[in-house]
Amino acid sequence: MWGGRFQGGPAEVMEAINVSIDFDKRLAAQDLAGSKAHVTMLARQGIVSKADSEAILQGLDAIGREIAEGTFTFKREFEDIHLNIESRLAELAGPVAGRLHTARSRNDQVATDFRLWVREACERARHGVLMVQKALVAQAEAHTETIMPGFTHMQPAQPVSFAHHCLAYVEMLARDGSRFSDAGQRMNESPLGAAALAGTPFPIDRHQTAQALGFDGPARNSLDAVSARDFALEFLSAATICSMHLSRLAEEIVLWASPAYGFIRLSDAYTTGSSIMPQKRNPDAAELVRAKTGRILGSFVALTTVMKGLALAYAKDLQEDKEQVFAAADALDLALAAMAGMAGDMKPDADAMKRAAEKGFPTATDLADYVVTKLGKPFREAHHIAGAIVKRAEALGVALDQVPLADMRSVEPGLTEDVFKVLSLEASLNSRTSFGGTAPVRVREQIAFWRERLT
Amino acid sequence: MWGGRFQGGPAEVMEAINVSIDFDKRLAAQDLAGSKAHVTMLARQGIVSKADSEAILQGLDAIGREIAEGTFTFKREFEDIHLNIESRLAELAGPVAGRLHTARSRNDQVATDFRLWVREACERARHGVLMVQKALVAQAEAHTETIMPGFTHMQPAQPVSFAHHCLAYVEMLARDGSRFSDAGQRMNESPLGAAALAGTPFPIDRHQTAQALGFDGPARNSLDAVSARDFALEFLSAATICSMHLSRLAEEIVLWASPAYGFIRLSDAYTTGSSIMPQKRNPDAAELVRAKTGRILGSFVALTTVMKGLALAYAKDLQEDKEQVFAAADALDLALAAMAGMAGDMKPDADAMKRAAEKGFPTATDLADYVVTKLGKPFREAHHIAGAIVKRAEALGVALDQVPLADMRSVEPGLTEDVFKVLSLEASLNSRTSFGGTAPVRVREQIAFWRERLT
Amino acid sequence: MWGGRFQGGPAEVMEAINVSIDFDKRLAAQDLAGSKAHVTMLARQGIVSKADSEAILQGLDAIGREIAEGTFTFKREFEDIHLNIESRLAELAGPVAGRLHTARSRNDQVATDFRLWVREACERARHGVLMVQKALVAQAEAHTETIMPGFTHMQPAQPVSFAHHCLAYVEMLARDGSRFSDAGQRMNESPLGAAALAGTPFPIDRHQTAQALGFDGPARNSLDAVSARDFALEFLSAATICSMHLSRLAEEIVLWASPAYGFIRLSDAYTTGSSIMPQKRNPDAAELVRAKTGRILGSFVALTTVMKGLALAYAKDLQEDKEQVFAAADALDLALAAMAGMAGDMKPDADAMKRAAEKGFPTATDLADYVVTKLGKPFREAHHIAGAIVKRAEALGVALDQVPLADMRSVEPGLTEDVFKVLSLEASLNSRTSFGGTAPVRVREQIAFWRERLT
Amino acid sequence: MWGGRFQGGPAEVMEAINVSIDFDKRLAAQDLAGSKAHVTMLARQGIVSKADSEAILQGLDAIGREIAEGTFTFKREFEDIHLNIESRLAELAGPVAGRLHTARSRNDQVATDFRLWVREACERARHGVLMVQKALVAQAEAHTETIMPGFTHMQPAQPVSFAHHCLAYVEMLARDGSRFSDAGQRMNESPLGAAALAGTPFPIDRHQTAQALGFDGPARNSLDAVSARDFALEFLSAATICSMHLSRLAEEIVLWASPAYGFIRLSDAYTTGSSIMPQKRNPDAAELVRAKTGRILGSFVALTTVMKGLALAYAKDLQEDKEQVFAAADALDLALAAMAGMAGDMKPDADAMKRAAEKGFPTATDLADYVVTKLGKPFREAHHIAGAIVKRAEALGVALDQVPLADMRSVEPGLTEDVFKVLSLEASLNSRTSFGGTAPVRVREQIAFWRERLT
Repeated sequence: MWGGRFQGGPAEVMEAINVSIDFDKRLAAQDLAGSKAHVTMLARQGIVSKADSEAILQGLDAIGREIAEGTFTFKREFEDIHLNIESRLAELAGPVAGRLHTARSRNDQVATDFRLWVREACERARHGVLMVQKALVAQAEAHTETIMPGFTHMQPAQPVSFAHHCLAYVEMLARDGSRFSDAGQRMNESPLGAAALAGTPFPIDRHQTAQALGFDGPARNSLDAVSARDFALEFLSAATICSMHLSRLAEEIVLWASPAYGFIRLSDAYTTGSSIMPQKRNPDAAELVRAKTGRILGSFVALTTVMKGLALAYAKDLQEDKEQVFAAADALDLALAAMAGMAGDMKPDADAMKRAAEKGFPTATDLADYVVTKLGKPFREAHHIAGAIVKRAEALGVALDQVPLADMRSVEPGLTEDVFKVLSLEASLNSRTSFGGTAPVRVREQIAFWRERLT
Repeated sequence: MWGGRFQGGPAEVMEAINVSIDFDKRLAAQDLAGSKAHVTMLARQGIVSKADSEAILQGLDAIGREIAEGTFTFKREFEDIHLNIESRLAELAGPVAGRLHTARSRNDQVATDFRLWVREACERARHGVLMVQKALVAQAEAHTETIMPGFTHMQPAQPVSFAHHCLAYVEMLARDGSRFSDAGQRMNESPLGAAALAGTPFPIDRHQTAQALGFDGPARNSLDAVSARDFALEFLSAATICSMHLSRLAEEIVLWASPAYGFIRLSDAYTTGSSIMPQKRNPDAAELVRAKTGRILGSFVALTTVMKGLALAYAKDLQEDKEQVFAAADALDLALAAMAGMAGDMKPDADAMKRAAEKGFPTATDLADYVVTKLGKPFREAHHIAGAIVKRAEALGVALDQVPLADMRSVEPGLTEDVFKVLSLEASLNSRTSFGGTAPVRVREQIAFWRERLT
Repeated sequence: MWGGRFQGGPAEVMEAINVSIDFDKRLAAQDLAGSKAHVTMLARQGIVSKADSEAILQGLDAIGREIAEGTFTFKREFEDIHLNIESRLAELAGPVAGRLHTARSRNDQVATDFRLWVREACERARHGVLMVQKALVAQAEAHTETIMPGFTHMQPAQPVSFAHHCLAYVEMLARDGSRFSDAGQRMNESPLGAAALAGTPFPIDRHQTAQALGFDGPARNSLDAVSARDFALEFLSAATICSMHLSRLAEEIVLWASPAYGFIRLSDAYTTGSSIMPQKRNPDAAELVRAKTGRILGSFVALTTVMKGLALAYAKDLQEDKEQVFAAADALDLALAAMAGMAGDMKPDADAMKRAAEKGFPTATDLADYVVTKLGKPFREAHHIAGAIVKRAEALGVALDQVPLADMRSVEPGLTEDVFKVLSLEASLNSRTSFGGTAPVRVREQIAFWRERLT
Repeated sequence: MWGGRFQGGPAEVMEAINVSIDFDKRLAAQDLAGSKAHVTMLARQGIVSKADSEAILQGLDAIGREIAEGTFTFKREFEDIHLNIESRLAELAGPVAGRLHTARSRNDQVATDFRLWVREACERARHGVLMVQKALVAQAEAHTETIMPGFTHMQPAQPVSFAHHCLAYVEMLARDGSRFSDAGQRMNESPLGAAALAGTPFPIDRHQTAQALGFDGPARNSLDAVSARDFALEFLSAATICSMHLSRLAEEIVLWASPAYGFIRLSDAYTTGSSIMPQKRNPDAAELVRAKTGRILGSFVALTTVMKGLALAYAKDLQEDKEQVFAAADALDLALAAMAGMAGDMKPDADAMKRAAEKGFPTATDLADYVVTKLGKPFREAHHIAGAIVKRAEALGVALDQVPLADMRSVEPGLTEDVFKVLSLEASLNSRTSFGGTAPVRVREQIAFWRERLT
């Protein structure tokens, strides 16, 4: 498909490396919006005439319709989205089209378009995060008493509820959402009117265009306005961190859906089958979500490396910003949508979870805590007592709550029948009533907390 | 220095890979603070006795003094900072020391310590950013009329003031500072009391310990509290972006200080000399600041890769979090301090800057804008007129404001003597009065804006 | 363009995340080659009949023609390139097509296709590297006596020839080329016949298919064959390092082409102009080459992060390998082609280079070396003598070779008229005759060395 | 520990950012070796006298002894290892010490030292890789008939032997080892004698010093010799890829050692226990090995970013090379040593592995292959037949080899008693005799292959 590349010589090489229309056409809507705001302002300020402004606005609207209808032809000879639209406008509106470019330059135009796009990407990511959170809260609501092992080092350590586990991700995602929100707000300053880099002598009103485009106001320094790309990097870093969280949940889904665990079942919607093993459900979607972290992190690295050591103001290197952000935003959108779907789709198998939770004497710490509380021993001594009783249970081949009291008392004579109240999984779960703990009473409070906020 | 490694066999390998005291001793202050808050709360809640709590607090204070005085011995046999302090406390306070560990675990302890450290790192970064901003605003104040070339593609494009250029970085840094601020706030929830991962049956008051440690409140989910490291990643990402901005300024300083530019002179404080070329001033500090972006980005990549796909709750992989954050924070602190110093140290050479600004007909866009405004031509046509006059100037070997009016009128008969008012560098600078533009009147407003805020 | 995403529900999400035909269609040629080799072997081994094999081969050839002619319809419902070809083959060849899949699986098929593609990418990169080297050697040949400053810290340090500078990059690129060569060889083992992961009971001959596809032999372990992607990572790492070298040369081209340096002139072929500043030549191609390092490094990071911690054998995460490699290979191809073009296109301005080389007393080390050699002083003392004379020159405002002998002798009485032989740029250049030095006699040897090898 | 930083003002900041002795003291041995080779050559070439050379060599030897004995004082005032040694040499040997620096500069000196260090790191990595391979081959030898599930998507797919699985990693590691070998060879050119950047007028013999230091020869271009760091990047990329392989095995060890799998048992040597759960063995070492990928990848990213766009020849940015390489090399050494230990330490539980292998009808593909071979059906049709029989087995709740023949014949009448020969795990394993397949006969050949090579 690429064989015998660049036989066209320098011209072909230069076109291949320089032309951006193949990807920056995704800025079409933003470019039109920016141009409309700009020309409207120029007319209000008397810099172009009402009539010229009307003609330009009509042309821009016509272009918008052409793009929406798929009849607009993007041409590589016009290099980028800005010149593509500009040249079409000249066809539609005649020489008057040239007045649109008064008091602006491609540098502030591209910065404005791109900032609008990234701002929307932040908003879209926030929405996607919300969808995952809602699905997880719904799972939590149904499973405050479904016991699963809480793991450390992939080994069962203490029982928790499936609800509690789901809500851990709701917390992570809440911070992700707030990062996108902060990023969107911080970038919400309009570069439009910074012109090439120094501002312009025309009596423009940048506050007006900023407002028309939903910005909080105009950027305060024209050099910064055209040179900065930290807004894109901040989006990419928030996306990287969010995708890392998704990869952790995706890893758990892959494990939980495997026969070794059998904690959940995913429907056909998010798995693929095998013609030969009809029972097999490969968690492809979860695996792909897990992998997206790589791509998104890669984009952050790419753009940071591009920006590193770049002198002000505009350099063509900046053209590398868009593909990275587009690819990362697409990957994140997809990962969030797939995860929202899977989070809702999971069917927990309470029995399998409970069986796994019973392995490894998971109420040993409950026993130790009991020894501290009831017998007044220091924590470290209590740990040793509990450890000795666990060894006894291991030798007997029984669970902790099935060790005979006599055996326990041979380790610690102060123990009474009462101790059995803390040794079951349910007792352990119910006992962890500290704020943020896994006790159903606490978890239900958290569900209520999130129900109220996730709207 | 490493020759014949691991001759001690598995024990030596395991110690080498597992022990963290060599780096996590930097958490000593945070660990002591966390323990004090915890035991104070335990006493108030009646979980440990007043007397035990007093003994523990005294022991912790004694340890704090030993560390401050350098008499504390960190031992590899105790693996990490937590066990080092715990074992010393047992020596100082006796068996009662064991009660400190009631209702907490190493998992929430390390999460709390590290979060406190990173929160301080955010604060320190904010302060470092402020110092650079102040130095730049001071430079700006002195140079609102010092003309230098505004570059695109490293080619002079339009004149700007040195003040305006400095303020572009003040803007970037303001966003950096606000990112550190947001990060510090978002992470300001206390993991303490999450215990191993599930909460605890002891009647602890997590709000109390949270408040004592300056947190806004306790983390709402115990699994999240011990598993999450997005707070560290957010700090690293903000640090990466900030270091990228510093690398851009550092690159400019290296260029400006080179004979090819000669725009600034740095004192001996931030340069190194050569015994053989006494006039040479190597901008070592600027080069090193430029390079730090690599290290900090590397840390973000490292920790993201560690976290990717990690199942909840605690895994030993998380131990890799601290060295990356410490290294990045140190690098950033240094880069900010060095940049604050250099920003104040730069002595601009106004003549050299102006000479460079004169190259390449930098007022060509002013001429075009004039043609638009005064002759009412569309922007694109005006561009062609200006281009033709530039060609004329090039042929004559003179600057734009020295092209005879007759020559100009042969291109565009509508031009009059009046045109010369816009063709000098000073005229161009003064004309760019749009909000955010480089005109001194605008720049002085921005200086006032920042003077008020940077306190 | 993406508005209201995923309104089709789970099916649309799953398709969007799972389907790979949009990018893996670039493996079409490799897939056809692999299938042909496979079925030919199956027939030779008597696993399928001659007739069936013929029918399948004819079908595959027909598909190859359809793709070449652009009449093949890639369908998203068939998910990937393998199923697209398989389903078309079934249409063309009937049920017999099903026999093609005997003794193989999609796992070894995709591993084979992708390895073939990456092997070709290595070869293409090697060729691209060679083109840049040739252009640089040609420049070197013309400029063994064109003096420019050798820089340290961006400050002129010692004179070198432009030829010598060009050849430094030829060396770097030679190592890049050899890295691609090593990578191509190391990956040259055939996964075909590894089947799903365990090998197959069919009496296949993997050596035969390996040979048919130009592999050195079959991979020795079936699990490794389908699970490994280090070959892709090795290509990406070699590409990253190569692109880093290109970015260094690109940075120099951007600087050299700027008015501050004026060392070279680039033609219109690799620069873009400005409608308003006809003399301006923006080095867009060089800037874009410089930026590509980011993208390629990002791909290496992305795929490493995807692979990290991935259990054997096949997981869907691996599907993320191709887009990263395709994007990086395309970027590298382009960067190499653009750099080859620019390296040939550069027109050095010998006067400007020499003027720059004269700044900063660049023969001071020659003076010191002279003092060591002729006066027998230890190196450190000689440095101080030279430094003192440089100071004198600075005070007089003259170059080193214009300091009166008397002034020199007031610093070091042992100096004689003879010293002036080493103080000119030309003398310095000619004197550096150590192996690898910049003396024209040495540089010409190096040119001959490369002329012989770069064919 | 860092409170109130930089109260010493610029001097303290500059020292903190500029001084490298804290880390580059690890180059002491290399620096001494380089100096010895250099001065020996200077004497042979008659550039320094025999006596001076002797005095210098004795001084260098004395310094070597001081460092070995720990009596050498590294001083921050002397900035780096080179000046520390140089200043001590001046104390020991008097003014004659100054002659050592004839015909070299710190630029070629540091490049030589660092290259020697990295070359050794390659050798050490190769050795570490070999140790892991040997341990895996030893495991393989004992387990050619130990059946475990071969996984796709973490779901059991086909039976393989534990030996076969171990050997997959032996293959990956073999490529890692050969990458380190290639890297070590490619970098094996001596920068010594390149001097500052241009070569030297002294009649030095660079081939002599190259040989003395074990280099294949001198670097051919002096600018390249002092500017290039691709050798460090190549080491880091090979280390990244190797650590990625280790992370995959580490992930599997963590999973295998968990109760959900129970495939292996690790001894206390590579696990940590819990005072309270005596039976718990946390696979800390495996988790830390898994995490090291992050750190090593981070180092590659860091140094690539530092190098990106760096103009020739020397810039202080290059000082950032060493810490990254040291940290990555240490991490890799540790990870390899820990993995070699764990690979030998694993005690497979054959029963648990077999039980897991039985899940999910893993001989379904064997059944399909049988239908192809014995009944002559096309592959795709055979798949459907096998799928239907699997469904039947699922309905009956039995393994495939327990489905009554009658039931099978209701799906495919052509089947006979003979089919049962392929339906057991053992039959499946033994049948996969294609080259690279998991059949014990094949695997034993591979073990012999590796036994011969790994010495």
